[in-house]
Amino acid sequence: MKRHYNFSAGPATLPTEVMQQAADEMLDWHGSGMSVMEMSHRGKEFMSIYHDALQDLRDLMNIPSNYKILFMQGGAIAENAIIPMNLVGMKPQPATADYIHTGHWSGRSILDARKYCKVNIAATAETSHYTHVPARDTWKLSTDAAYVHICTNETIGGVEYHFTPDVGDVPLVADMSSQILSREVDVSRFGVIYGGAQKNIGPAGVTIVVVREDLLGHALPICPSAFDWKVVAENDSMFNTPPTYSIYIAGLVFKWLKRQGGVPAIEKVNIAKAALLYDYLDSTEFYRNPVAKDCRSRMNVPFSLHKESLNELFLDGAKERGLVQLKGHSSVGGMRASIYNAMPIEGVRALVDYMRDFEKQHG
Amino acid sequence: MKRHYNFSAGPATLPTEVMQQAADEMLDWHGSGMSVMEMSHRGKEFMSIYHDALQDLRDLMNIPSNYKILFMQGGAIAENAIIPMNLVGMKPQPATADYIHTGHWSGRSILDARKYCKVNIAATAETSHYTHVPARDTWKLSTDAAYVHICTNETIGGVEYHFTPDVGDVPLVADMSSQILSREVDVSRFGVIYGGAQKNIGPAGVTIVVVREDLLGHALPICPSAFDWKVVAENDSMFNTPPTYSIYIAGLVFKWLKRQGGVPAIEKVNIAKAALLYDYLDSTEFYRNPVAKDCRSRMNVPFSLHKESLNELFLDGAKERGLVQLKGHSSVGGMRASIYNAMPIEGVRALVDYMRDFEKQHG
Repeated sequence: MKRHYNFSAGPATLPTEVMQQAADEMLDWHGSGMSVMEMSHRGKEFMSIYHDALQDLRDLMNIPSNYKILFMQGGAIAENAIIPMNLVGMKPQPATADYIHTGHWSGRSILDARKYCKVNIAATAETSHYTHVPARDTWKLSTDAAYVHICTNETIGGVEYHFTPDVGDVPLVADMSSQILSREVDVSRFGVIYGGAQKNIGPAGVTIVVVREDLLGHALPICPSAFDWKVVAENDSMFNTPPTYSIYIAGLVFKWLKRQGGVPAIEKVNIAKAALLYDYLDSTEFYRNPVAKDCRSRMNVPFSLHKESLNELFLDGAKERGLVQLKGHSSVGGMRASIYNAMPIEGVRALVDYMRDFEKQHG
Repeated sequence: MKRHYNFSAGPATLPTEVMQQAADEMLDWHGSGMSVMEMSHRGKEFMSIYHDALQDLRDLMNIPSNYKILFMQGGAIAENAIIPMNLVGMKPQPATADYIHTGHWSGRSILDARKYCKVNIAATAETSHYTHVPARDTWKLSTDAAYVHICTNETIGGVEYHFTPDVGDVPLVADMSSQILSREVDVSRFGVIYGGAQKNIGPAGVTIVVVREDLLGHALPICPSAFDWKVVAENDSMFNTPPTYSIYIAGLVFKWLKRQGGVPAIEKVNIAKAALLYDYLDSTEFYRNPVAKDCRSRMNVPFSLHKESLNELFLDGAKERGLVQLKGHSSVGGMRASIYNAMPIEGVRALVDYMRDFEKQHG
């Protein structure tokens, strides 16, 4: 049994000790005679797992008591439709929502939003080919938007917000799929925070939604009951059978993160990991990251080799050293190193060492 | 480590050898250096898992080549809305859909359908308090329905269709959550078969949809992209990140079922298991199952004790013998033994032995 350093953008690497615990408990969770996968979601065993996960996430993110935490399904992509279905009803129809377009994923959010409201693209990074976050003072917000939507970290482009924009009293809605739990965030500045779990939380198949209570209860009549946040909240995320095993793994990851010292501690490590990789990238012409320096993602580092013909050789050599899933997204090409919470700094060091050696050999 | 006999209605017991394999492979799947949970859904490792699961399910159910198999999210409850969003567009709006009301779950399907179409309740088992399936010749189908919806096994009521109704050329849509893979079914008689996985397939969090190809491409404009069957089918269920680990476990269950001899073989075992339990129930006044004999479910056997005051004692004694999760659904009370594919006949024997002993002691 050998564990590689896995740079996948998601589903992504998880802490080895979490995987070990999951393996140990697979056939018989805490003497229950069952796997967590086999438990009724309404039984006392699973309820204890659920409540622990809920409280640990609340602790880790300092989520105020007037926010609900929902465990949903369908990932951020489904939530892109579920958000307008839940929020545009606060305004007369047809309502307007403001979107900031910073890359692939905010672009995808816009496409689904258009089914339910008028989308105002209040700012776009198109001019830089989506390699920066437009400064707040350039945003052209609507006068009567139902909400303002941002994607705080573009997983494909490797572009991250290093600030929380002030949008006044309009609810700020953030897709944090690949940023959540990687850094301190003031939840009270947001109306809704959502994300697929498969980056910093756990397995694909559970979506985290953190929503301020006053934003519940406005779902459009065409919103499926299972995706009406108020219904989900009133039923403790058990209106439909929740993805129990995924919530269990997420809970183990939350406890692991607490053992690491919580979000402030992991943020320090994440800053160090990102600096290690970007500093090396900036020291050479052999590799290149296209993102504006003050908007570079700490989680996803896309880079290209100066000769594209070396790509396959680079990936093969990396794999030989146990550095896997470095291939960039098909829409961008090149490489991408995703260095989420569960990637130890030793993994990033091993990557930089390899990149340096590869450069020496082929530079 | 002790494994109990687990009679949960879902999430439900899974084959011990599947759980063992999942534990063994948790940290390093087939020398990949990763857990399945950590794999990119687009990498060759997960793609091989996905294609195996797809083919094994097609083999097990004899799914014709003009049907697509989709792995979705949200369970049958979300699908209750997704079905009309995908099908009523075949007819002028507002369209009508026919529903057969046989209990709790078909009732839930009706509630969400009403958001998108006129629902005609073509038959209802209300008169028997939902303890039978109305005979086909009593159904009052519409002349122009977009589809006819049935729930082939009511998990709470313990009522099962032991026939496939003929509805002419109108697509027959079946919620088979708690029946799928338990018996032979002629898929070509259906337009859509769907179900949550958490009974006979695997962990909660993956929804199986088997849909005839001509029913794709009719989604209403308000259908979220992630739930438009055509979009899902064209993207091999990877339009959004699928619940990869749940699909992996489902795939292990499919291979286990093939090793048991497939659906015809497990159906024989299921018939024997159900007979064992119902024959005993019919032999005594101490316990009672309310369902019409020719509509009794092979999968979910609700029963009550003649004195309700004995319920807690019954459950405590059962647990002492390692017979767990027998408590009935809160809306019905009493007991329920769910005896899905993964429940061995020894488990049902142990239950009947216990019930007999309990009767002797308290009868």
